[in-house]
Amino acid sequence: MTTYDAPPVPTAAAAPDVALPQGFRAAGVTAGLKPSGRPDVALVVNDGPHHHAAAVFTSNRVVAAPVTWSRQVLADGRVDAVVLNSGGANACTGPQGFLDTHRTAEHVAAALGLSAGDVAVCSTGLIGELLPMDRLLAGVDAAAAALDAAGHPAAARAIMTTDTVPKQAAADADGWSVAGMAKGAGMLAPALATMLVVVTTDAVADPAALDAALRAATAVTFDRVDSDGCMSTNDTVLLLASGASGVTPAPEELTEAVTAVCADLARQLVGDAEGAHHDIAVEVVGAASTDDALEVARAVARNNLFKCAVYGGDPNWGRVLAAVGTTRAAFEPDRLDVTMQGVPVCVAGGVGADRTDVDLTGREVHVLVDLHAGDAGVTVWTNDLTHDYVHENSAYST
Amino acid sequence: MTTYDAPPVPTAAAAPDVALPQGFRAAGVTAGLKPSGRPDVALVVNDGPHHHAAAVFTSNRVVAAPVTWSRQVLADGRVDAVVLNSGGANACTGPQGFLDTHRTAEHVAAALGLSAGDVAVCSTGLIGELLPMDRLLAGVDAAAAALDAAGHPAAARAIMTTDTVPKQAAADADGWSVAGMAKGAGMLAPALATMLVVVTTDAVADPAALDAALRAATAVTFDRVDSDGCMSTNDTVLLLASGASGVTPAPEELTEAVTAVCADLARQLVGDAEGAHHDIAVEVVGAASTDDALEVARAVARNNLFKCAVYGGDPNWGRVLAAVGTTRAAFEPDRLDVTMQGVPVCVAGGVGADRTDVDLTGREVHVLVDLHAGDAGVTVWTNDLTHDYVHENSAYST
Repeated sequence: MTTYDAPPVPTAAAAPDVALPQGFRAAGVTAGLKPSGRPDVALVVNDGPHHHAAAVFTSNRVVAAPVTWSRQVLADGRVDAVVLNSGGANACTGPQGFLDTHRTAEHVAAALGLSAGDVAVCSTGLIGELLPMDRLLAGVDAAAAALDAAGHPAAARAIMTTDTVPKQAAADADGWSVAGMAKGAGMLAPALATMLVVVTTDAVADPAALDAALRAATAVTFDRVDSDGCMSTNDTVLLLASGASGVTPAPEELTEAVTAVCADLARQLVGDAEGAHHDIAVEVVGAASTDDALEVARAVARNNLFKCAVYGGDPNWGRVLAAVGTTRAAFEPDRLDVTMQGVPVCVAGGVGADRTDVDLTGREVHVLVDLHAGDAGVTVWTNDLTHDYVHENSAYST
Repeated sequence: MTTYDAPPVPTAAAAPDVALPQGFRAAGVTAGLKPSGRPDVALVVNDGPHHHAAAVFTSNRVVAAPVTWSRQVLADGRVDAVVLNSGGANACTGPQGFLDTHRTAEHVAAALGLSAGDVAVCSTGLIGELLPMDRLLAGVDAAAAALDAAGHPAAARAIMTTDTVPKQAAADADGWSVAGMAKGAGMLAPALATMLVVVTTDAVADPAALDAALRAATAVTFDRVDSDGCMSTNDTVLLLASGASGVTPAPEELTEAVTAVCADLARQLVGDAEGAHHDIAVEVVGAASTDDALEVARAVARNNLFKCAVYGGDPNWGRVLAAVGTTRAAFEPDRLDVTMQGVPVCVAGGVGADRTDVDLTGREVHVLVDLHAGDAGVTVWTNDLTHDYVHENSAYST
């Protein structure tokens, strides 16, 4: 019998609670879907006057029933309400799973006097099990009764799965605002943990403007949290606009505010990743193109050996170079520089400064790779690979 | 302080010792490169009459000095001797590292009366550190003095790093034979642990025939051990032919024998993977093409969540489906079948037989994915992701 003494998992600090923009109400209740008895059903309702919406869904080809449903709902750019449940993903559940999602949307619509075709559905939890519909629908009724303009924190709590803290963020502009909630426990790829995000704004913006802002925002935020296209069966990011502020921001203002909220939420996801002890920013500079920089950053961010080394406090730049070497990016091996925590441990592809000068004791780790092949650069966030990650993910369904 | 009680790592059984084909001598000695005091310098010498050779090197673009050197040696298809060291990879060591490799080859050549240009060099161990040349060269002298026709087992032992057992395999044909030794501790990708393989035969075969046989063999053996092109900085597979048997096998006979030895060695690598508790055969059938089958098998084999689930004894087919869904292979999600240990846990993309019937207590695990899209199929081997893997790879350099 082998035992390991692992350092305690750092506890992520919860971000401050956030207020909903004008025109929205939300709620989070306990429906009994989770064995833990924690809140597990959330509602977010857009009271208008506008009900414009955009969404980004998982790129996984195996999608859960709620994703299939919500794609149809989003087709006309209108969403009046979103119902979210934790405690079950309703994925790989066949025709019955889709009927259950449809029934959930209809139940929300009946409770709130809406059309089911304007109710998006999100689910997260175990794959391959049907939801206990009696509990879920009773939870919908309870959530509908609890809807409140101050309900953002309660909804953010009800969508948590292995998250240790709720994730919320906000951005205030001139007369209008953006708020967001997220659930997800990092390691989005290759671990495929589901990410659900609901962003709300009282800005006046049509579905096309929302779509442009959301795609621009996710491309530089959630897509750079070690995602690499390997998303889960349920990943959903929604952006809803009520228009209640009466303010129509310029497209770049809208994009900026939505990006700020998404960036804040993405950073919180990394900070609460399953079993992680370190948040690692892999910054690649000197790339010939953004695509090159992204390919290199993701190769490093997904390298298990490197992630284990960081966990062990080992500034193993050789593993960084070996990961860079697997890419097709433009670079010369004998010009690669790697700097860890400000210490240039690898210079021109060889030994640089003393690696023992690298301090990896803190939560945040910065790895800088200079390809010396151009002017492009990106940062991709990931986490270390730890005993706790293995423990949590080998015991998830038990 | 969190502690885990991990089950003991199963000990891999060492394969039987293997005899060298006619025309070869080998040795393994302790030169003091490893702190452990275990053997760390090996020599394999081809006494002819032929000195034909072929090789497959890492596809990593960051390559160690010995790879750069040996590529040049192999250019004319002639290799008289191979010197291999564990205890240091001589990677990312700049011009001095290359000079050290050159000097090692010259030392071997002088000791054996050869040309340095016919001496291949292989190194494995930590990246980014220069080799202690005085010890290495003294080790070369000792190995040269110890060369013996019965030296295959000693050489196989001297190339081990984190391997717990030496790896050897043989195939006997009609009047000629093939032998092979390997080092490597599995998880070849994404973990990038170095694999070194030396295959010897007394068949009569020219360099082109050897090259064809070796490429055919590696494509269906080492390349299907979770490799995916993400090889280490030092990976090298050599095939040397002495012609001493006087028998010229047909090309298909040579390929068959070399493939048999490589398949045996590849399976031994999986069985001794760092910290692994399970060897997982991911078999994909019903694929529209071999490329599709490989892409799907590798996506499953590289999925950390799935590998953790197997470690935890959890037949989590949802993670298999989610991994399949990240690929571009031809399939319909609602036709996917997943069978684990013979139990059809997922049928037509949904819940199948009772997952509690799946027995994951043994070392070997079989996962069968049927894409129902054609007739092609492959098997890729991988391992589970365990506490011991994290432990070993976070403490490697300390």
